[in-house]
Amino acid sequence: MPIPADFADLAADILVRMRTRAPRVHCITNSVAQQYTANVLLAAGAVPSMTISPDEIAAFVAGADALLVNLGTFDAERRAAIDVAISAANAGRKPWVLDPVFVDRAPQRAEFARNLLAHRPAVVRLNTAELVALSGRDSPGDAPVRLAKTYATIVALTGTADHVTDGARRATIANGDQLMARVTAMGCAGSALIAAALVVEPDPFVAASAALIAFGVAGEVAAVDASGPGSFAAAIIDALYGLDGATLRRHAKVS
Amino acid sequence: MPIPADFADLAADILVRMRTRAPRVHCITNSVAQQYTANVLLAAGAVPSMTISPDEIAAFVAGADALLVNLGTFDAERRAAIDVAISAANAGRKPWVLDPVFVDRAPQRAEFARNLLAHRPAVVRLNTAELVALSGRDSPGDAPVRLAKTYATIVALTGTADHVTDGARRATIANGDQLMARVTAMGCAGSALIAAALVVEPDPFVAASAALIAFGVAGEVAAVDASGPGSFAAAIIDALYGLDGATLRRHAKVS
Amino acid sequence: MPIPADFADLAADILVRMRTRAPRVHCITNSVAQQYTANVLLAAGAVPSMTISPDEIAAFVAGADALLVNLGTFDAERRAAIDVAISAANAGRKPWVLDPVFVDRAPQRAEFARNLLAHRPAVVRLNTAELVALSGRDSPGDAPVRLAKTYATIVALTGTADHVTDGARRATIANGDQLMARVTAMGCAGSALIAAALVVEPDPFVAASAALIAFGVAGEVAAVDASGPGSFAAAIIDALYGLDGATLRRHAKVS
Repeated sequence: MPIPADFADLAADILVRMRTRAPRVHCITNSVAQQYTANVLLAAGAVPSMTISPDEIAAFVAGADALLVNLGTFDAERRAAIDVAISAANAGRKPWVLDPVFVDRAPQRAEFARNLLAHRPAVVRLNTAELVALSGRDSPGDAPVRLAKTYATIVALTGTADHVTDGARRATIANGDQLMARVTAMGCAGSALIAAALVVEPDPFVAASAALIAFGVAGEVAAVDASGPGSFAAAIIDALYGLDGATLRRHAKVS
Repeated sequence: MPIPADFADLAADILVRMRTRAPRVHCITNSVAQQYTANVLLAAGAVPSMTISPDEIAAFVAGADALLVNLGTFDAERRAAIDVAISAANAGRKPWVLDPVFVDRAPQRAEFARNLLAHRPAVVRLNTAELVALSGRDSPGDAPVRLAKTYATIVALTGTADHVTDGARRATIANGDQLMARVTAMGCAGSALIAAALVVEPDPFVAASAALIAFGVAGEVAAVDASGPGSFAAAIIDALYGLDGATLRRHAKVS
Repeated sequence: MPIPADFADLAADILVRMRTRAPRVHCITNSVAQQYTANVLLAAGAVPSMTISPDEIAAFVAGADALLVNLGTFDAERRAAIDVAISAANAGRKPWVLDPVFVDRAPQRAEFARNLLAHRPAVVRLNTAELVALSGRDSPGDAPVRLAKTYATIVALTGTADHVTDGARRATIANGDQLMARVTAMGCAGSALIAAALVVEPDPFVAASAALIAFGVAGEVAAVDASGPGSFAAAIIDALYGLDGATLRRHAKVS
């Protein structure tokens, strides 16, 4: 396991690989998040695609390097597409990320998400309320570790600080800015960035941690001159686009 | 009824309550407007959700404090969701706002909107062309007052100046900037802001007026340094995020 | 055919006509691109509408001046809407633009796009990979000219340089900035701008060329002060909004 000081270098290295490789990430994501997610991926050097038609999604996933499954808008067509897409990803040994948005708001969605866990996402990215809903307990407690072990996945629990675990290793990332919670789709875009990182980094624990470090540091850089969430939303994309190793090493707070 | 000079203070107070209460607003809105609407709500301190799946929308509305129904993209799934959502809102005594986008363009949409009026929206927010189409007359004339009386609702007619009435009281708000008409979803986002205001202010006439004053003043603040509609779209979100009583009192033009 | 030096003046003139006429452009476009496309049209003085409901799309197209058909998200409802919309456009002698997004990724989509070509789009706007997929050859070669002749349409092939042809005349436009490829929906928005230009310029070869020149020059102006793709996305909208003849003449690189 990398020692904390290594994470900034790993994140910098993964960003360089991402810009070189230009990984294709197919995103089944909610309609609120599509544009921002695409722009975050493009800023990081990845190539997004977003169709949700069940008829053609297998072809899109086959031509992609990773898949994001985000449950934010949960219409019938997206649900049908998700099954096909995950089968195609698993058949092609392509990593996929689950973002179980708002499973705390509707029981059907939580059940749907629990079923998806059995299909081997490389990473699950969620917030505390979603984790509680998914694990069926009253408080998060050791839910990340349990969930990671049960499903042999990486759990990336994001919030004021982000916690990443594979059940054995743990990283806590204290980067980011409070304005990130004031821009819609910020978490969704972070999940997409994790999917892109999985393409260029074989260890999913490292990939997820690196993506969240890079995104959090970009948020801190963006917050310096932002006047509010409107200018911040553009500035974090600029910051991610220009992010380098020196900035990552100066800002990264990993333990 | 508040005298005009009071409105700036009321708007300031309602903004403070919104930031404290963080009202949850479920939005059935068109796919063009979803992202911008969510960001305007977040900037004002509210918490948006946006799913349109008929299967789970009742659960989302039950967990929300107010509902927005916007007809901008009028697909089959949204129409099915609207009926369920309004029933859930009315059952839970939660206020809902109707935004009958583009009812002047398609007769089916106007008829659908007229049927919705019977289900007691707290506020209807529209422009002149939409009002004419909805009321079936050739010119707006006294349509706002008639519509407000007939359906026991608040009519918020927006344009160069905004006119709000409950059939008896009237407020005219001469705030805003012409760039607001050059950014898509600006009107839709204003309707969402009204929905958020309804959660923290029991008088819907005051809530609708306050939301439109706050949004219009934010537009004036944003226009000062904007270079065009692109920078303006971000700046109005920044301005709304930072809006305070002094700025509202300096800018509000209510009669 | 205009000599190259004329194109800047033509583009300036078409922009003025667009701002005066405020053409209505109905867009069936993918959900990722809807907001940005609407904002680009509004910045240029056009009036976008975006509904995709097959029930009402004929009424919307009948009330519009031009139609954009973009295949970016290829769901069942959009496909049904496209047939109705094209029939309405052709019945009303309104120009329509085909943007066959990602036909290189899924064979069904390429076949669907080829069928659409028979329905007389005024302009087809695509990139090299999409052109290769659509023409069924291994490399673009003379595919633009062949495609234009076969379908009596204008082919606008965009990339580092843009190539526009009606099968006989050709224009090469070397404007734009590399950041345009780092913002999602930029190509889609360019196609919408072509649709708006077709309303105010009867020669579709000139209309398509002028729209791409204006968009490319706006991109160059925007790049001057942009810090990355986030600020660039807003700046190009500002630049398009303020674009004038002097700037177009100074920047236009047409041959």
